[in-house]
Amino acid sequence: MFMKYKNVNIVGTGIYHPSNKVDNDYYIEHFKNLGKDIAPFLDNLGRKERYIVNNTTENALTMAIEASKNALKIAGISADKLDAIVFSSDTPEYLCPSNALIINHELQASNAHTVYDLNSNCVGMVVALDQMSRFMKTSKNIKYALVVGGILVSSIARDDCKYTYPASGDGAAAVILKCTEEDTQRGILDSKYCTRSEYYNTIVSPCCGLTKARLNTTSEYDKKQQWTPFPLNFFAPEWSKAIDEFMCEYDFSLDEIQYFFLSQYSKQFLIETARILNIDNYEEKFAYIGDKYAYTGTTSPIFALHETLQNKPITPGAKAVFCSVGAGVAMCSLLYKF
Amino acid sequence: MFMKYKNVNIVGTGIYHPSNKVDNDYYIEHFKNLGKDIAPFLDNLGRKERYIVNNTTENALTMAIEASKNALKIAGISADKLDAIVFSSDTPEYLCPSNALIINHELQASNAHTVYDLNSNCVGMVVALDQMSRFMKTSKNIKYALVVGGILVSSIARDDCKYTYPASGDGAAAVILKCTEEDTQRGILDSKYCTRSEYYNTIVSPCCGLTKARLNTTSEYDKKQQWTPFPLNFFAPEWSKAIDEFMCEYDFSLDEIQYFFLSQYSKQFLIETARILNIDNYEEKFAYIGDKYAYTGTTSPIFALHETLQNKPITPGAKAVFCSVGAGVAMCSLLYKF
Repeated sequence: MFMKYKNVNIVGTGIYHPSNKVDNDYYIEHFKNLGKDIAPFLDNLGRKERYIVNNTTENALTMAIEASKNALKIAGISADKLDAIVFSSDTPEYLCPSNALIINHELQASNAHTVYDLNSNCVGMVVALDQMSRFMKTSKNIKYALVVGGILVSSIARDDCKYTYPASGDGAAAVILKCTEEDTQRGILDSKYCTRSEYYNTIVSPCCGLTKARLNTTSEYDKKQQWTPFPLNFFAPEWSKAIDEFMCEYDFSLDEIQYFFLSQYSKQFLIETARILNIDNYEEKFAYIGDKYAYTGTTSPIFALHETLQNKPITPGAKAVFCSVGAGVAMCSLLYKF
Repeated sequence: MFMKYKNVNIVGTGIYHPSNKVDNDYYIEHFKNLGKDIAPFLDNLGRKERYIVNNTTENALTMAIEASKNALKIAGISADKLDAIVFSSDTPEYLCPSNALIINHELQASNAHTVYDLNSNCVGMVVALDQMSRFMKTSKNIKYALVVGGILVSSIARDDCKYTYPASGDGAAAVILKCTEEDTQRGILDSKYCTRSEYYNTIVSPCCGLTKARLNTTSEYDKKQQWTPFPLNFFAPEWSKAIDEFMCEYDFSLDEIQYFFLSQYSKQFLIETARILNIDNYEEKFAYIGDKYAYTGTTSPIFALHETLQNKPITPGAKAVFCSVGAGVAMCSLLYKF
């Protein structure tokens, strides 16, 4: 008897960024005028350039639609093949209807009956990929799904906050998932979550809460994101622990992991995770795109995935891990087999 | 050999509403001053009373925390037993971090590592129950999950909109799910989705989009919800079709369905669905709480569930269906076995 596996594989990715490119100099000058030298901070993160929306027509939703079209093209399917659409963002354009439903409309994805928005901030797309793969595996009806995220961080960043304003970029990224029965197990295999909610009040948007943010008597500054510094040094140990557990539970060795798609907030996350795992050639295996696009929040590990799939060799059967983190702090790690 | 089923059962529910009760007279008088007689409209919906937040300390998040505490009490478990928390709302208090993560913190649910917000407007909690049950069935680690929703509709309703302002109430509802291996299959069994996105621009919040809503140059009126009338008469036929398909696929008859938990927007939804299904004694089987609490959006079918579980007999092995609808239009039907 041949056992068939219900696999959920990534069959296409797409990204989109606005056309307006901004380099470090702009932000270094801006903060110099505030009496702060942020050059060493940006250097430590690994920042060089980012794309920022400088018009009133683009937002997280419109960019997500463009990224989705690009992903559909690479997957080689038309939008009417989609059975589900999940949108992930902490800067959604609408709270009603779901942005996923508007994407259904704009793509003319008339068979995508399962539509919803999922928000877990910067870890959102990794969570959404996990969620949707579990949905597909337990559903009779879903063959193709679109998981798409967008971020318009320029609309919420305070221009005196070094942690967000110069560190982030706007953009969108999309993944096409295909559920298919195969002889060997591959695709999205498993996930691990770790939440440490004692940091719930460190990155808050809108700072005043949405109820007060609807009032014009509240200052625009209070409506933006507040970032209070907190330790970031437990992310790499936590991701390394998740990776160790994956290796143990799925019985494979570290060198079977071809690529690591981590949160792109800081290059130090990659270096530190590689150090803990005793990986020497980290630049080969840890995709870093934070120099080109800066930190694009929920979409950041997907930007790294997209650039890798477009430019690097993929070995069928090799593993990949996605490790990311969202405000508050919520972490998720995902195990994938090509 | 005995086959074991991995069942996801509802083991506790809780609701919360603000203390300020408002009856129809207030709204009838308000609209009379605008030159409109809304008494027949409210009567048709089945409205009598609703609870509205009239202070600055309560919002969808704080109410969700209270509903969660009530559900935990009924389930007889402490918050540290929770492995996952999902929050559903189209009036969330924060976009960052997730409201689910703040609920983790406030309940001291330190083992609830899987936390995220899911938004599909008024159908959100039904979708979240479906999602989380699939997550639990495919995960090794999740025994207890909290699915909680909250709505502060009073913060987005325009006071000249008869479809929302007098029709809705504020509140929160919570469900505790338990994943357990049992000899017979029960709990959340399956779902059906139907999205008709041609109505994507009929119920929109914020009307101006969130990007513009952050600016104090945008009027508060433009930041609220816009409701443009659209046909509601295809909901009941769609839900009836989903129920027919459940009966066919799971081989049971209509009289095995003990309760129908529908969207509580209009009593006519219940009457029409019962009519299509040829059910005579609709008031016995179709829980209606829209008279007592008005329409509480995403939480409305869960208010109906909670009131039924508290006040009516439950037959083990009997079926229930949840059928709801969200803006745009997204519908979801869920099959449950007690």
